[in-house]
Amino acid sequence: MASQRQKSGNPVKSKSGEPPRRSQAADDDTVITALGLKEAAPTDAMAAYFKKCEEKLGFVPNVLRAYAFDMPKLEAFVAMYNDLMLAPSGLTKLEREMIAVAVSSVNRCYYCLTAHGAAVRALSGDPVLGELMAMNFRAARLSARERAMLDFAVKLTAEPWAVEEADRAALRQAGFSARDIWDIAAVAGFFNMSNRLASATDMRPNPVYHGRAR
Amino acid sequence: MASQRQKSGNPVKSKSGEPPRRSQAADDDTVITALGLKEAAPTDAMAAYFKKCEEKLGFVPNVLRAYAFDMPKLEAFVAMYNDLMLAPSGLTKLEREMIAVAVSSVNRCYYCLTAHGAAVRALSGDPVLGELMAMNFRAARLSARERAMLDFAVKLTAEPWAVEEADRAALRQAGFSARDIWDIAAVAGFFNMSNRLASATDMRPNPVYHGRAR
Amino acid sequence: MASQRQKSGNPVKSKSGEPPRRSQAADDDTVITALGLKEAAPTDAMAAYFKKCEEKLGFVPNVLRAYAFDMPKLEAFVAMYNDLMLAPSGLTKLEREMIAVAVSSVNRCYYCLTAHGAAVRALSGDPVLGELMAMNFRAARLSARERAMLDFAVKLTAEPWAVEEADRAALRQAGFSARDIWDIAAVAGFFNMSNRLASATDMRPNPVYHGRAR
Amino acid sequence: MASQRQKSGNPVKSKSGEPPRRSQAADDDTVITALGLKEAAPTDAMAAYFKKCEEKLGFVPNVLRAYAFDMPKLEAFVAMYNDLMLAPSGLTKLEREMIAVAVSSVNRCYYCLTAHGAAVRALSGDPVLGELMAMNFRAARLSARERAMLDFAVKLTAEPWAVEEADRAALRQAGFSARDIWDIAAVAGFFNMSNRLASATDMRPNPVYHGRAR
Amino acid sequence: MASQRQKSGNPVKSKSGEPPRRSQAADDDTVITALGLKEAAPTDAMAAYFKKCEEKLGFVPNVLRAYAFDMPKLEAFVAMYNDLMLAPSGLTKLEREMIAVAVSSVNRCYYCLTAHGAAVRALSGDPVLGELMAMNFRAARLSARERAMLDFAVKLTAEPWAVEEADRAALRQAGFSARDIWDIAAVAGFFNMSNRLASATDMRPNPVYHGRAR
Amino acid sequence: MASQRQKSGNPVKSKSGEPPRRSQAADDDTVITALGLKEAAPTDAMAAYFKKCEEKLGFVPNVLRAYAFDMPKLEAFVAMYNDLMLAPSGLTKLEREMIAVAVSSVNRCYYCLTAHGAAVRALSGDPVLGELMAMNFRAARLSARERAMLDFAVKLTAEPWAVEEADRAALRQAGFSARDIWDIAAVAGFFNMSNRLASATDMRPNPVYHGRAR
Repeated sequence: MASQRQKSGNPVKSKSGEPPRRSQAADDDTVITALGLKEAAPTDAMAAYFKKCEEKLGFVPNVLRAYAFDMPKLEAFVAMYNDLMLAPSGLTKLEREMIAVAVSSVNRCYYCLTAHGAAVRALSGDPVLGELMAMNFRAARLSARERAMLDFAVKLTAEPWAVEEADRAALRQAGFSARDIWDIAAVAGFFNMSNRLASATDMRPNPVYHGRAR
Repeated sequence: MASQRQKSGNPVKSKSGEPPRRSQAADDDTVITALGLKEAAPTDAMAAYFKKCEEKLGFVPNVLRAYAFDMPKLEAFVAMYNDLMLAPSGLTKLEREMIAVAVSSVNRCYYCLTAHGAAVRALSGDPVLGELMAMNFRAARLSARERAMLDFAVKLTAEPWAVEEADRAALRQAGFSARDIWDIAAVAGFFNMSNRLASATDMRPNPVYHGRAR
Repeated sequence: MASQRQKSGNPVKSKSGEPPRRSQAADDDTVITALGLKEAAPTDAMAAYFKKCEEKLGFVPNVLRAYAFDMPKLEAFVAMYNDLMLAPSGLTKLEREMIAVAVSSVNRCYYCLTAHGAAVRALSGDPVLGELMAMNFRAARLSARERAMLDFAVKLTAEPWAVEEADRAALRQAGFSARDIWDIAAVAGFFNMSNRLASATDMRPNPVYHGRAR
Repeated sequence: MASQRQKSGNPVKSKSGEPPRRSQAADDDTVITALGLKEAAPTDAMAAYFKKCEEKLGFVPNVLRAYAFDMPKLEAFVAMYNDLMLAPSGLTKLEREMIAVAVSSVNRCYYCLTAHGAAVRALSGDPVLGELMAMNFRAARLSARERAMLDFAVKLTAEPWAVEEADRAALRQAGFSARDIWDIAAVAGFFNMSNRLASATDMRPNPVYHGRAR
Repeated sequence: MASQRQKSGNPVKSKSGEPPRRSQAADDDTVITALGLKEAAPTDAMAAYFKKCEEKLGFVPNVLRAYAFDMPKLEAFVAMYNDLMLAPSGLTKLEREMIAVAVSSVNRCYYCLTAHGAAVRALSGDPVLGELMAMNFRAARLSARERAMLDFAVKLTAEPWAVEEADRAALRQAGFSARDIWDIAAVAGFFNMSNRLASATDMRPNPVYHGRAR
Repeated sequence: MASQRQKSGNPVKSKSGEPPRRSQAADDDTVITALGLKEAAPTDAMAAYFKKCEEKLGFVPNVLRAYAFDMPKLEAFVAMYNDLMLAPSGLTKLEREMIAVAVSSVNRCYYCLTAHGAAVRALSGDPVLGELMAMNFRAARLSARERAMLDFAVKLTAEPWAVEEADRAALRQAGFSARDIWDIAAVAGFFNMSNRLASATDMRPNPVYHGRAR
């Protein structure tokens, strides 16, 4: 399961006097998934979308490359993602990203914690908030609204069978509309899907995410 | 949480001598979700799609009505659903429905167990198979291929963080290609999303599903 | 673990254009358990009891045939079962069957979900109620009394160590007497036993249950 | 939930210099259950059985007194118990008691751990074995046969839905017959029932058990 | 995993007519851990401490012998243990031992349940209280203060990520000071450490603990 | 539970057009624990130790300030910590920090994930390795030795009762000595203690950790 690392020659000593472990993740993360599916020729729409990603982010997120073996699948994913995370909603973009990370923390998804942790740091201007969403949202100093939103998203992730009217009532109590409740559920649901695609395929995030907005 | 049922007049006695409980679910299931979002005017594409559902199934599945408060959301959902469940794949349509039900059983999702349990019964011509997928897939007499597929989908549902190369290797061993592994993960992921939307909103299945293909 | 299915010749095409999966469960369920214990000569009482089953139900439930390798065990089981499920009690027969199915759902017992799901459908005259008990009792429209009863039975099943006075108080609050509490616990306990006998031996329900009272 | 203890006058100092906590359990355990159901007039058979208990054990086990509010229930319980724990079987009486305690440990049942822990100590002549069954059977030095038996019983208790042919095969491998497998499952099942009756009713063991066979 | 027990000659018959199982635990427990680390030469302080143990208890607790392969580790352990369990605190020594056993029960630690169960019996003068802490603290008749203390310690053990201000508030409500809360957490934390050292190394308690203060 | 955040005046707009969330964590983390225990006068040894921390790290880790209300407790903690994490061992310092973070990830401990995540980044010279230990160690590219070590530490954390000889054998197979096994268990055990102290007291890490060695 774990490939034996080759110790490369002449490593710099760390301050503890031990040779540093060679950085592995960046190299390994050039292989985007364990499936090795070949990218298909992009449709015009998807070629334009990838170009837009490069202009705005500086790179194409690996999840898009992972889906690119099949254009209809990529287009369906992009359409749903953009609607959920970017279209008008009673939830701010930051709130949607906070849900994404809190859900991915329950599911311990390396790809989504990395990519969306960076998004929380960037959108909030609060690098620590991204860490807290990934580590344990209960330790964060949250508004009552944020806490209710994440309590619902996390319960829906961990024990969906137990979500009932009382849980929806807690959201309404915190000021969320019926439409907002749909959006919280939809974002939480979407990352429960994405987390599983990523885990199933050993999807690796673009290394550039790690240093962003620290 | 539980509304007091009104005992309607003059119930037929059951053979145990006790008055029968009035059938509730059919009535209640006319309210599709607990959110009460109003359906938007359908786009042409969606109007045509609903019409096609009525022709083929005799009804529009409630999940579509639940999404119909917002056409972009409905269209994104329909596009992804149809690609996953109906487009060409190394998995048969029945296999995809078996995954849908086994995943929904882990998550105890009333809507999806009902709607996709009916699909398993119909596609397999084996009513008992639908029951087994909903109750405990481990009790079903499955081929090695089916068992490997469902073991993967269920582990991915219950503990996605623990899925590793050994799990993919078991699928390859059972004859699945890299693309097939993607499809198993994508269907399992999709129902992990849908199960949560349904639980979050108390989505009710069309009553007609219950009696189909028994 | 899973025997390879033989594809029998000339299958009818399903409407999806895929060959239907041959119905398996009915055949396989003629082997009642994985243990292959031989039925003993029935005592007079048990011969009479089997005859009564055939008259009333049209068949002898497989659980009785499973126990029939040893008459003292069969008689003890029948005595306890009939007292619990049929003797006078503050709980209706339907309520006792609802407990049976909700408990069996936690334990995912194929035999008991099938046999007692049919009983819930028959006694309630509400086929959907049987499905709800098997899938997720929390999604059913229940009276406060029914809900309290099932909450207690399910907690007692899933985490018996955590049942305390507060749980009994909730039952009393819902109108149950001390004797009723005993009966709820006794039925829940009994199916926690039966579920495990069935799972341990791969006990298969009589196929006829599946279609009853739909 | 917890009644305030009255500190009775003039307690003996413990060697730590702190006043000893007054022994509570013995007093409280004179109230056998939290339900307060009144014992019914015993049938002749049950009166004789209670007398036999007193002769052999010196007391009537509280579980019998708990059931004694209703003679048919008591008789059904006694018949099943005696068949399972005392009738001829490929399992020794000690092995059956070891299963009882290991199962009760998973369910953390105070009554059964106390009463059957004493039985393991008495039957084995090894007081430590009783402790190990109650605390963690995996820490005991067991024969391969004993370990296989308890692994099966404990898995059947904790996740009955996951018991499959491979689990039965492990028992056969360890030398158990089909009938022995039934008996292991039946004893494990029975204590899954009894544990829940005891927890549901706050059943208290006879204090005399605690000091026996130490 | 389980060594085959040798049946020694001429065993005394038990009253059930079955040959008694030879007492194993006492023998096996002369090997203190599965690691076989050799005791180092004791420092003066540790030699004196061992001598004091023998004087006060009649023996050196095996956990100390287990640590004795390395004097700095032993000294650090002894310093922390004595501060936590014996230094002045708002918690009585008995309360600290009750936490030790309740935590060890969650973790099912044979060593700590045995050694600290004996301490609860001795300090309380209530042998049953030790059993209740080991079996299921919820079944014990506790003061509101004791119950709050153990609820906190057990939650902190089972799901530390979920402990929040509401949990601390419950302790304050029960009369505990900030310093007391630290002490409850520190004792619970310490046994979460010790339980794991003991399980990791198969640490065996001194057999003498079993019979103490019964 | 969640204090209402005050929106401070004149926030900079983020690029999404939404006002940024004011950075909270840094402010809040100046209150080290929720207990408010006052620091005691330091002993000479501890004063010197704090000075050394400031020289080497630039700050005193908050966990030390949290313990500083009581010098004996602080000294015992420091002695054990330094022995475990810094004294000679068959495990490198990086390996010990990897265990610390993998254990803290199971327990979702904000303090320890932050402080020791930084240590993994610094000691390894591989910032991504720190993220992987915190998010899901199974996703990291590890040597067989590292994987065996973390599998043991994580199982010991999540289900200590199930650790047995087979688990120790896997460590020996990976080249670990008896002494190494002790050290793995001791470090894993220590962080199971520290994680709980931190969660119980809402201990906040020094904000400076977050940006270190990125």
